[in-house]
Amino acid sequence: MNKALLKTLKGFRDFLPKEARKRQYVVTTLRKVFESYGFEPLETPSLEYEEILMGKYGEEADKLMYRFTDNGERQVAMRYDQTVPLSRVYAQYQNDLPIPFKRYQIQPVWRADNTQKGRYREFLQCDIDIVGTSSFLADAEILAVIGECYKQLAFPNLKILINDRALFGNLPQRAITIIDKLRKIGEEGVLKELKEIGIKNEELAKILEAKPTENLLNIMKTAEELGLPENILQFSPTLARGLDYYTGIIIEAVCQNYPTGSLGGGGRYDNLIGMFLPVVKDGIPQTVPSVGFAVGFDRTLDAMEDLNLFSDFTKLSATRILVTIFNEELLDESIKLTSFMRNSGLNVELYNDPKAKLEKQIKYADKKSIQYVAVIGPDEIKDNTVTIKNLRVNDQQTVARTDLLKVI
Amino acid sequence: MNKALLKTLKGFRDFLPKEARKRQYVVTTLRKVFESYGFEPLETPSLEYEEILMGKYGEEADKLMYRFTDNGERQVAMRYDQTVPLSRVYAQYQNDLPIPFKRYQIQPVWRADNTQKGRYREFLQCDIDIVGTSSFLADAEILAVIGECYKQLAFPNLKILINDRALFGNLPQRAITIIDKLRKIGEEGVLKELKEIGIKNEELAKILEAKPTENLLNIMKTAEELGLPENILQFSPTLARGLDYYTGIIIEAVCQNYPTGSLGGGGRYDNLIGMFLPVVKDGIPQTVPSVGFAVGFDRTLDAMEDLNLFSDFTKLSATRILVTIFNEELLDESIKLTSFMRNSGLNVELYNDPKAKLEKQIKYADKKSIQYVAVIGPDEIKDNTVTIKNLRVNDQQTVARTDLLKVI
Repeated sequence: MNKALLKTLKGFRDFLPKEARKRQYVVTTLRKVFESYGFEPLETPSLEYEEILMGKYGEEADKLMYRFTDNGERQVAMRYDQTVPLSRVYAQYQNDLPIPFKRYQIQPVWRADNTQKGRYREFLQCDIDIVGTSSFLADAEILAVIGECYKQLAFPNLKILINDRALFGNLPQRAITIIDKLRKIGEEGVLKELKEIGIKNEELAKILEAKPTENLLNIMKTAEELGLPENILQFSPTLARGLDYYTGIIIEAVCQNYPTGSLGGGGRYDNLIGMFLPVVKDGIPQTVPSVGFAVGFDRTLDAMEDLNLFSDFTKLSATRILVTIFNEELLDESIKLTSFMRNSGLNVELYNDPKAKLEKQIKYADKKSIQYVAVIGPDEIKDNTVTIKNLRVNDQQTVARTDLLKVI
Repeated sequence: MNKALLKTLKGFRDFLPKEARKRQYVVTTLRKVFESYGFEPLETPSLEYEEILMGKYGEEADKLMYRFTDNGERQVAMRYDQTVPLSRVYAQYQNDLPIPFKRYQIQPVWRADNTQKGRYREFLQCDIDIVGTSSFLADAEILAVIGECYKQLAFPNLKILINDRALFGNLPQRAITIIDKLRKIGEEGVLKELKEIGIKNEELAKILEAKPTENLLNIMKTAEELGLPENILQFSPTLARGLDYYTGIIIEAVCQNYPTGSLGGGGRYDNLIGMFLPVVKDGIPQTVPSVGFAVGFDRTLDAMEDLNLFSDFTKLSATRILVTIFNEELLDESIKLTSFMRNSGLNVELYNDPKAKLEKQIKYADKKSIQYVAVIGPDEIKDNTVTIKNLRVNDQQTVARTDLLKVI
């Protein structure tokens, strides 16, 4: 095969163990937090009938969707997000689902986007939503969960910006979209653009001076009672997150040490999940009160890389220690040591080739970012000890086997 | 939208929380075992250039592959298995990978198969492989890992059937395929089919009387030293697993209490992973010694369902307890209780609607398979107690808050 063909498609990525491990670390951490609040997993298919997805995201999205005709002449499309599938699931299984339906969903989606903008064509979406209740407790819980997620991922200086859609009153959506850009283009920029669409200066001033609504204050207070530290929430009256479907609270998570962009966003969207339900009348869709948050997965990983939050060896390798093989005759000793440590609950790798030189085995451990290496040669066997090398600090010590678990 | 359209494609499945939770439990268990032996995760894209996948699995597979032309006029195909992507990765990143490359990969694959045969068109593949070593230690380790996986999943009476490809000598592949069917069609059936292709009776007799090879005995002994219980391995001289690419050990995991079929299979395949490497000469592909195993994910789940291995509540719900809300005035007490238990490391759900009747809240817990429900009303507040209902045994007790963690 032509070597030039050995590549992945533009916007698609291989994740070799080191990267895959980081991704898994983040997914596992998020999942643990989600589950500690009673959220449950949902999985939907990668392919759906095109008719389910098409027209649900706007014209631009329809163009970016991976669509094709399958072998059975069905028009199918690849998952484009997780909200439309959630809406379908909600309509299809209404009677089987516990309501409110608290679900998380962590699956890849596909978009034939412009990769020059730093976007990927296959990327993981990571959503939590509470569907079927308009209770402020649901909004507060989403805030508490987000705070806990980024806390568990060790983000410093996290802020959760929040706003209430109600504060924009009857301002047209395009005006809101302009105001939303305040942090990017500054007050002057916003005023200039607002003027172009015929909106008066005082409208911006009104927004900037706005106080949080009663609803927002209640949600903030409850989120803090649920455990969110006090200095995390920050009222941000210009926050709109571009989208026009938010109907209540609007949320954005940012890290002050990472100015590249937000780590995720969400809010309350009461008029979206009902899209597959019978309309109430006159084409008005059914309201299904919902609130949720999407962790920007790639962004979060990028920020963690930037802030050096993966520096800990235990996050880079699941393997705690590599047991080397001194020579073929002493293989049994290495096997025994491996089993002993593994039975103690440690992740232990036994080097697979009894003929390899010790140096090669240690290099292998280093390549896999394994912190500790155990050597058990004739001296160690005689003294009932093990030599433990710590590759992180380039140090080694010989310890009694009974003390082994104390040093690693 | 037409209600009739609210469905998934044939062979594609939604996994609502209860099912998704079971799947996740199995994935998490397998992953833990894989990682305890030093296997690391690998992820490859869902879409590849068609040229990478086409022709690698045979004509029949090419027909079942999901293929299409993307928006950029590229011929692309959806992941059909994880072995060809592994081979591509091995060729593409050879210098970056630790060798032997011990990886596990748990991702969906897509095949437009006949769903009447009980097959799915989207299903999870779950593979472990050790690439780049012909050491018997690698073979033994695969056996030990498999044993540990099914042990952790609580399978009773597990057997790992093993054979050595060498025992078939120069028998043509179609004869091997017939002998492989012994358990299905019996000795007579095999002899009849062998006769049809001109193979003598004595060839079957020779196989049936065969003794394990030295290589096999060595692998079996080492696997047991690595922790595999003694009664698990079972030499099975007719085992071939249909495929023609095995070059050494051949493995199949079965549960004697589940006769439907095997739980997974694998073996050594030294001539496959080199498919993307430059040929040695005269079209002979490079040997890349490899051994691996694929857990039959859907089959394993089906067997666990059959054998009632999911009966434990803790496997059905990640949530340990639902904290109810007695009324709006007492909400703060429920919040406090929730935070206290969650900070103690429990997965706790706070019911989201302060206005719901207690009965409705308990039904919700039951629907989510949550075992415990906490009630904190005026009496409990007065006495500093909590009432804990155990939905599993339909029992309740009122305990001092300090004793709470002892009863759940």
